[in-house]
Amino acid sequence: MESTAEPRRRDAAGTRAAILASARRAFAASGYDGAGVREIAAGAGVTAMLVNRYFGSKEQLFAEVVADTMADPVILAPENLASPTIARDLASALVGLTAAGAGPLDGFLILFRSSSSPAAARIAREQIARIHHKTATGAVRAAHAPERAALLLSLVAGVQMMRQMIALEALADADPDILVGILAPIVAQLLGIEADSIAR
Amino acid sequence: MESTAEPRRRDAAGTRAAILASARRAFAASGYDGAGVREIAAGAGVTAMLVNRYFGSKEQLFAEVVADTMADPVILAPENLASPTIARDLASALVGLTAAGAGPLDGFLILFRSSSSPAAARIAREQIARIHHKTATGAVRAAHAPERAALLLSLVAGVQMMRQMIALEALADADPDILVGILAPIVAQLLGIEADSIAR
Repeated sequence: MESTAEPRRRDAAGTRAAILASARRAFAASGYDGAGVREIAAGAGVTAMLVNRYFGSKEQLFAEVVADTMADPVILAPENLASPTIARDLASALVGLTAAGAGPLDGFLILFRSSSSPAAARIAREQIARIHHKTATGAVRAAHAPERAALLLSLVAGVQMMRQMIALEALADADPDILVGILAPIVAQLLGIEADSIAR
Repeated sequence: MESTAEPRRRDAAGTRAAILASARRAFAASGYDGAGVREIAAGAGVTAMLVNRYFGSKEQLFAEVVADTMADPVILAPENLASPTIARDLASALVGLTAAGAGPLDGFLILFRSSSSPAAARIAREQIARIHHKTATGAVRAAHAPERAALLLSLVAGVQMMRQMIALEALADADPDILVGILAPIVAQLLGIEADSIAR
């Protein structure tokens, strides 16, 4: 567990980054309601007042942490989206991400642990719509792209929940190749593209 | 909020049911860790000691509540599983269940709010495997039935999370017919059956 950092000379950018990192850890561990600004401040070696000065409010801090976790997506990574075998690559990334021993990513933990808080759900919804949903919609090649993209995000979230959080045996102990084999055509169908034709 | 019921003459079955109902409300509201046995007892008008006498432990109480919520499934209902248009019926049930204004079912709330607790996740995993996953596996008509069934459960959980808890606009405000139209072939594919051939 992080010890309380001593106050030290840091520039504004460094302080901001430290607060964000502390907030990210706190929200991932305890969810939006469970994480306190004072605890977050202590984890960055600053006062709660300074946190509010940098971020305005706990809500704005949460919004920035959420957006930050979506900045370098593993599944919706540009190389996957540009790939000729996009469906298989997306499916592989999802299965790889949720392998046994792989801890859930902060982003999903934060989302998951905060969704039952109305304020946090609202913020999460806005960030997902702005970032992941926008990206996913751009990858769809069929009618009703926003709905298809949202259902793809749902599938991703659900697999993370059942394979990683709940760790249902049939998923957690499954042969990853079997899961990818089932998921790739599903992803292709959601994206409105032909199932990737690749050698198996 | 439930007021503390006064102690009253009840038979054992009635007391048991009252405790289960109180526990269900508490776990749905606060998750496994957040709900206390004393609070649950108070909500049933009994002592914590009596709760432990009836159920043995908080874990066993939680297991029974979870199993209880899976007793009358809305999506994996027998009539849906026996239907010639099973894929469309399952998709319709899922979309209907997660409509705007429809509060999340206790079962999902309990699952969702408890999954980040290792003890609760373990209990949930056992009950899902024993009940929902078993049922869903029986509906699959292709190889790798357990994996396919688990991915179907993942899709269901993910849609509940994104449409109902997070309420992503593209899902929450979507035309339900459009969602069913996209989901039905996906469900059919997961079950390893031909997409239902019905008039649209």
